[in-house]
Amino acid sequence: MRGNVIVGQSGGPTAVINSSLVGVFKTAKDRGAAKVYGMLHGIQGLLEERYVDLSEHIRNDLDIELLKRTPSAYLGSCRYKLPGIHEQGAQAVYDKIFNILRKLEVEYFFYIGGNDSMDTIKKLYDYSLLIGSDIKFMGVPKTIDNDLAVTDHTPGYGSAAKYIGSITKEVIRDGRVYGQKQVTILEIMGRNAGWLTGAAALARGEDCEGPDMIFLPELPFDVDKFMERVDAIQKTKESVVIAVSEGIKLPDGRYVCELTDNVDSIDTFGHRQLSGTARYLANRVARELGCKTRAIEFSSLQRCASHIVSRVDITEAFQAGGAAVKAAFEGESGKMITLKRVSSDPYQCTTDIYDVHKIANIEKTVPREWITDDGTYVTPEFINYVRPLIQAELTAIMVDGLPRHLYYDNKQE
Amino acid sequence: MRGNVIVGQSGGPTAVINSSLVGVFKTAKDRGAAKVYGMLHGIQGLLEERYVDLSEHIRNDLDIELLKRTPSAYLGSCRYKLPGIHEQGAQAVYDKIFNILRKLEVEYFFYIGGNDSMDTIKKLYDYSLLIGSDIKFMGVPKTIDNDLAVTDHTPGYGSAAKYIGSITKEVIRDGRVYGQKQVTILEIMGRNAGWLTGAAALARGEDCEGPDMIFLPELPFDVDKFMERVDAIQKTKESVVIAVSEGIKLPDGRYVCELTDNVDSIDTFGHRQLSGTARYLANRVARELGCKTRAIEFSSLQRCASHIVSRVDITEAFQAGGAAVKAAFEGESGKMITLKRVSSDPYQCTTDIYDVHKIANIEKTVPREWITDDGTYVTPEFINYVRPLIQAELTAIMVDGLPRHLYYDNKQE
Repeated sequence: MRGNVIVGQSGGPTAVINSSLVGVFKTAKDRGAAKVYGMLHGIQGLLEERYVDLSEHIRNDLDIELLKRTPSAYLGSCRYKLPGIHEQGAQAVYDKIFNILRKLEVEYFFYIGGNDSMDTIKKLYDYSLLIGSDIKFMGVPKTIDNDLAVTDHTPGYGSAAKYIGSITKEVIRDGRVYGQKQVTILEIMGRNAGWLTGAAALARGEDCEGPDMIFLPELPFDVDKFMERVDAIQKTKESVVIAVSEGIKLPDGRYVCELTDNVDSIDTFGHRQLSGTARYLANRVARELGCKTRAIEFSSLQRCASHIVSRVDITEAFQAGGAAVKAAFEGESGKMITLKRVSSDPYQCTTDIYDVHKIANIEKTVPREWITDDGTYVTPEFINYVRPLIQAELTAIMVDGLPRHLYYDNKQE
Repeated sequence: MRGNVIVGQSGGPTAVINSSLVGVFKTAKDRGAAKVYGMLHGIQGLLEERYVDLSEHIRNDLDIELLKRTPSAYLGSCRYKLPGIHEQGAQAVYDKIFNILRKLEVEYFFYIGGNDSMDTIKKLYDYSLLIGSDIKFMGVPKTIDNDLAVTDHTPGYGSAAKYIGSITKEVIRDGRVYGQKQVTILEIMGRNAGWLTGAAALARGEDCEGPDMIFLPELPFDVDKFMERVDAIQKTKESVVIAVSEGIKLPDGRYVCELTDNVDSIDTFGHRQLSGTARYLANRVARELGCKTRAIEFSSLQRCASHIVSRVDITEAFQAGGAAVKAAFEGESGKMITLKRVSSDPYQCTTDIYDVHKIANIEKTVPREWITDDGTYVTPEFINYVRPLIQAELTAIMVDGLPRHLYYDNKQE
């Protein structure tokens, strides 16, 4: 019999983050963990001693299948930044966490999240060294943004890319319906990394011309040049569809969406809420080029559209959770599971483990050479990279016409 | 051998309008039509003699299955209003149409559309009586808005409702993730009729609490009262999700979205493009109640999300097309196919035919008694009406990770 396990979810949700949770839970139980606790709202909830015994909630194989298909973080998430371990007052925070873990007889700690969340694993691991604790700390990668270092890609990205590719295709079909001039601007998530926006290019194929231009946040965005390009394209083509990242910035460093008057807010990690980019550009096109425009924000659905997930992605999310448990049980700590692509064609991928210090807080952006020279599209290399990640589906379990989810009622707490 | 058939699509697209097109095409071929022409961009394209021989494009059973699953109008659509048959200059327009039909040896004319499009069938039929033409004119109902008179519901509505119910559920899950106060406003299509917005209530069930409030365009919208209600709910609940119709109006008759500064335009039928309602309300909530807000426009996806359609809907869309052919071949003209609900539980539905004069240009809104007394939700009767229409799925044909469509390349023209 192993000791107890605790697992938490952190940062923005994805359509498959619960598949990683299930991967941790099931592998831990299968490998003899006594108890598997779930932190409610990540480390922030743990500090308030909010946790559950997951066996009381994931009771059978059907629950496991439902949870894999449930969007958003089942346990709730947080955006909570632990203090540096040597900062003033830090000791009280860490002592509190380690005391709670000790009380729960936790020997293995898993945290499913992105680069901000890996900062938590790094600090907890460092503190464990400082105090000589034997608890093992492992990170499980997750983010639709695909901006984690070292790993080939992140669980969550493939499903978001599949959703973006699918609905871009549908919107392109829709845009051609009236046979009149129309410019559609799609606003896609991704603050600093263009992985999601680039996925709009997946729509291009035998049965779809794909978007006409794609603008990633990796390159400065020149509004005047953009207007010229749109003008040139709309002279040759009725329906123009353009994908832009919510995070595109002017050459002076301001976000394009700052040119609008939307209320915005800043989260705990100092990230701005961005939106309004597509609307702003669509209004400019309507005013200056005098054509009909549409602005479509793909919105939160990019991270929660469980009704169309990639089976490759959801399987890898599960595997990443399982691999973290295996590694921790074998004595690893302070590491994150990475996905290692063995081959693109045929697609083969395994897991590996890597020092979390070299991953936390680092953002991996799209390489310059995967963006065309003129900065208006992604290259075939980009597509070849993404395509294997969106393959196959995991059919939703439909009940009375809608996808069924595993419901965690936080009123129970 | 029958004479020739022509079919057109008109008005806003739906996820299943091509299923009706296939229903007309296949039934006409099966029943011996010599040729089945498709108008490109409806009556507007026909006036420019733009049409295709559909047999050259729908070549086999796989094409039929792909076309059923292809969003937007395969033949292209239009928003074109024919002049009244006695208006000045009308004769030239009608003579042109009837000459083209005569040249093509068309004996049966089918038009798939909503109440504006039924106006076209009505006028063409009336003109056929005037000139003693034998051509049969039949309407096939279509609109996501579900606002056609006489018919129990319209093909296109069930799939849009299923999409809205599904993503509302996903967004509700997503909204609970951080466990902090947040108000999400969903903006749903429907200018004057709340059928689509009401479908957000489908999300409520054993595994989801559903939206907190739903505002239909049938009732005047009081912004101050709305703010009070939101304030009251957000005091008792972390994540508040509210669905509003894009068409909600102030008591003075202005659209709520007119309080914003969005560029808008007016289409041929005098309908305004509406958007910005959710953003406006979210900004007000953020400013006045000081909580985090999100505005999510469900956007065009409501009418083109073929990746999650209702099988009931897509089957009925096909049947409506087939029934129109059968009726016309039996000599009917100036009629529209209606859907007639025989029973809700178990759900049974047949088709019927009805005088198009009593359907064209009439909008059917949600009955007052299907909206709660305080105007903030729909009643169980509403849900019982919609639920059967969203049942079961028609699996997309996935190729290389994305739904496959039947591509009509208008460069071929």
